[in-house]
This record gives sequence, C-alpha cells and structure tokens, in this order.
Amino acid sequence: MKFTKMHGLGNDYVYIETFHQPEPSDPSLLARTISDRHFGVGSDGLILIMPSRQADARMRMFNADGSEGEMCGNGVRCVAKYLHDHGIARKERVTVETGRGVLSLDLKIDQGEAKLVRVDMGTPILRAAEIPTLLPGDPPIDAPLQVDGQTFAVTAVSMGNPHAIIFVEDSAAFPLERLGPLIENHPMFPRRVNLHVVDVFGPEEVRMRTWERGSGITLACGTGACAVCVAGVLTGRTSRRILAHLPGGDLQLEWPEPSESVFMTGPATEVFSGEWPAG
Amino acid sequence: MKFTKMHGLGNDYVYIETFHQPEPSDPSLLARTISDRHFGVGSDGLILIMPSRQADARMRMFNADGSEGEMCGNGVRCVAKYLHDHGIARKERVTVETGRGVLSLDLKIDQGEAKLVRVDMGTPILRAAEIPTLLPGDPPIDAPLQVDGQTFAVTAVSMGNPHAIIFVEDSAAFPLERLGPLIENHPMFPRRVNLHVVDVFGPEEVRMRTWERGSGITLACGTGACAVCVAGVLTGRTSRRILAHLPGGDLQLEWPEPSESVFMTGPATEVFSGEWPAG
Repeated sequence: MKFTKMHGLGNDYVYIETFHQPEPSDPSLLARTISDRHFGVGSDGLILIMPSRQADARMRMFNADGSEGEMCGNGVRCVAKYLHDHGIARKERVTVETGRGVLSLDLKIDQGEAKLVRVDMGTPILRAAEIPTLLPGDPPIDAPLQVDGQTFAVTAVSMGNPHAIIFVEDSAAFPLERLGPLIENHPMFPRRVNLHVVDVFGPEEVRMRTWERGSGITLACGTGACAVCVAGVLTGRTSRRILAHLPGGDLQLEWPEPSESVFMTGPATEVFSGEWPAG
Repeated sequence: MKFTKMHGLGNDYVYIETFHQPEPSDPSLLARTISDRHFGVGSDGLILIMPSRQADARMRMFNADGSEGEMCGNGVRCVAKYLHDHGIARKERVTVETGRGVLSLDLKIDQGEAKLVRVDMGTPILRAAEIPTLLPGDPPIDAPLQVDGQTFAVTAVSMGNPHAIIFVEDSAAFPLERLGPLIENHPMFPRRVNLHVVDVFGPEEVRMRTWERGSGITLACGTGACAVCVAGVLTGRTSRRILAHLPGGDLQLEWPEPSESVFMTGPATEVFSGEWPAG
C-alpha cells in the first residue's frame, strides 16, 4: 500500500489515498500500527484521502491511538496540497469533506506545487457558557485566574475547542511544563482547556507556545493560533491580520469581521513517499 | 534516494545502501535531517551500507545528532538481514566491516528471509580499572553502592562500554527514571555507566530494563543484554545461555567460555521502504 508522509508545521501524518488503491480494511488498527515511531512509519496519526460525492475528496483522520478525529487544521492543508500536487484536483481552490462539513481551501501555487494553503476555520465562539469557562465576561478578556499562588490575566475563546490565552513578556521563559497542566485542568474550565502563552512583537506579529489539552507541549496548534488572533483583537493588542510564530513554523491569521470566520494560511509539506507492506 | 526503514527490538534506523546509488554527500547532515521524527523520516539515526574490500559490506552509523558511532548491535543485525534479503550477499554467514573491525554474523533464514541474526559481541572486560569503576573487585560482584540513602548490590562489566547490573525482585517496579540518572553519574563510575535492572525468572530466563548513558530509558540495549548474561554467570544466578526479555523484544545470549566472546541472537525487521527526495 502506497503512502505519503506530510506535515503542517511539524504536525505529521501518514496519508493514504484510496482513489487508486483499496481502502484499508481496519483504518483504526492501521493507524495504531503505522503511527508507532519505532516499529511503524511514525506519525501523529493516519489520514485517508477518499473519493467524495460532495467535494473533491473526503478526509478521515485517525489519531495514533486509533481514535477517529473530526478535523485537523494542519492535516486538511496537507490534504489540499496532495489533491493538487498529485493531480486529483489540480485547481487553486479545492473542497474537502471533513467531520465538520465541507471546507473550501485556497492554494498558493509555486512552480507547480502548492506551498501555502488558506483555510476558513469558522467563527469564534465567545459566550463563556459555550467556550466553556466559568470566568466572567462573554468572552472573558484579561480575566484574573489564580494558579499556584500567582494571578494571570486570561482571555478565553473557543474555535470549536476551548482556548485560554495569556499575553506575557517572554513566552520562551514561561514555565509551560509546570503551569500547563494546572491551567488545563483548572476548575474555571469545566471541559479543560488548551493554553497559549503569547509575546506581542508588534500589532501584526506575535510569538506563541502551546500546551495542548491531552497532549502537552506541541509544535503547532492551528485552532489555537486562530484563538490567539481573536484574543489579540479583543484585548486591543493586535490588528485583525497577524503573523504568528509557532515552534513548528509560521501561520498567518485573519479575522476580517466580528461574528465572521477566522482564516488561517500556512504551509503544507510533503516529506517522502513509501510503500507499506501490509494491507 | 531510496531508503529502507528497519529496526532491531525497536532500535530503528534509516538504512541507505550505496551499492546501487551514490553515497550521500554529507551523511552527518543527512542523518540529522532524515532522523527528525516530525520533519523527516524519523529514526534513531542513519546507517549506510557500503561496498567494502574486506567484508561483504561496510557499515557506517550516524546518530540522530549527526555524530558518527562505531557500532550498534541492533543495527548490525539489520545490516546483515539487508545484505541477505536484498541479494547483495545471499549467504547464511555474512561479514560486515564496522568501527570495531570486521564482524561475522550468522543468519537464521525462514521462507527466504533472514529472521534472526547471531553476532559475536566480543569478550567482556572484567578488570575494574578498565570497565572503569572504582567499586572493589575484578569485576565488582554484588558490590554495595550507596544511592539516595539506599544500598544496592551492583555487578559491573564492560562490553566496550560500561554496564552496571542490579538484580531485583521486580524490575517493572524499580524507579528507573529517578535512580537511573543518579547511578549513571555516580562517582564510582568515572566515565558514567549504563544501568540494567534484572529479574531472574529462572536459570535460563531473565527480564531487564535499561537506563542508557546519555539516552535515558530505551527499548533495547544489545551490549547491556550481553553484560547481564555475564553478570548472571558471575553471580551464580543464571547459566551461560539465557533468554532475555527487553521492553523492545527478546534476545538470546550465550557466553560459552570464560575469557571468550559473548554471542547475541536477535531479530531484525524491515518496516517499509521509501524514496527520500533530497540527495
């Protein structure tokens, strides 16, 4: 079975397309086997690129533990690049059916290959009860949160999943490993939370580090970068279009209008192709 | 450039043969790039399988940080399997030129593929000054070592690199993460040490867990398993031929005669083949 390894900002998946070869019989089991970083190909999970009646392709994603996910911002950019570069949909705008509906993606083509992909990431959810958080405000903006004897000013936003943003002087110096788990599981966030610590370099440029709910420190969180863009606007720290530096690379975020979608533009990279012996 | 991903007990390398394609121009740089588990193929390092004047092939190994290593017991088994299975040396005994000289390896063939490989791992070094350790005895056998307020009975052996072995009731319950670094860097081991905690199931069967010098907890340490075999004989706990269960899988060890070589037999597994775009 042919596969392609791709990543978006270091968030890496094994991609298997089923336009030209049969579907794996048990994709959940295959995801567990193929994702193992010592005994398999090694990845954050498996993404199937399949024919769709509603879009250029359908994407199914499986985490490394075999569980199925709805969508992945870094993954869907790679699916769009694959559809273009491998000739399945050689267009500048492609559509992908995901667990959150059909998404439309715009490709920036350079020398026949898609380099950057722009994704509509949906409308931010700002009502505290829906984020959900018990902090005051809709949304909470620089609300005080007590953690381990200190008080942090926290802005909370949901992009379908909950995010807490703390603006700091120096995100590199923030003790994310120690405070990440305490804030993730803080009683003010009944469904836990993804934490982002952010330096503002200027109104159009930030640097961020992430503690992801259930995963710890990660290289890049697409929905989190969108939440940081929204939090920057709401707190008056940044404009509606920013460049964000993440540990895995850079993303451009735009939130053109209140109550409308956030758009994320970022790279998609093909690393290598291979042949997996089992079916 | 074509590559093959292989592992021995989960100790995984990218293998590139230069019999049929040119040598990489900068293998140290390639090792760093290709070994990255998110942005590259992902591995513990890169092993080149090259033509040799003295043996069936020459092996050069590069760690994931780009540094060159002399030899790797798990890696050389995979080189032997590759030579056989890919038709470069279709024999039951192959020779490989390594940084520690030419090694002779015996293959166990099943349905045309090498499954198990037996390697002469050389003669154990038992003089304390050469291991090196400041513990008493040549070698130290169940010598008392004070660590963190407790006393452990430690046997020390070198297989070209230093090993400390502690026989315990239950290796799974041993606090390896906490005590590993303390014993690795203990003043009694002037060049640090690899630590192995071992349960004896019977005179011919043990289970072991390893804290590797400079790497922490690992899935399998071939020289360490040899040292455990020697320590079992020296302390009277096991016979000269044992089966060892490691977290990554099983090894058979034999130390037929005092002052002679230890032989290690273990699996070598091909995971997948691929094409790396850059040269």
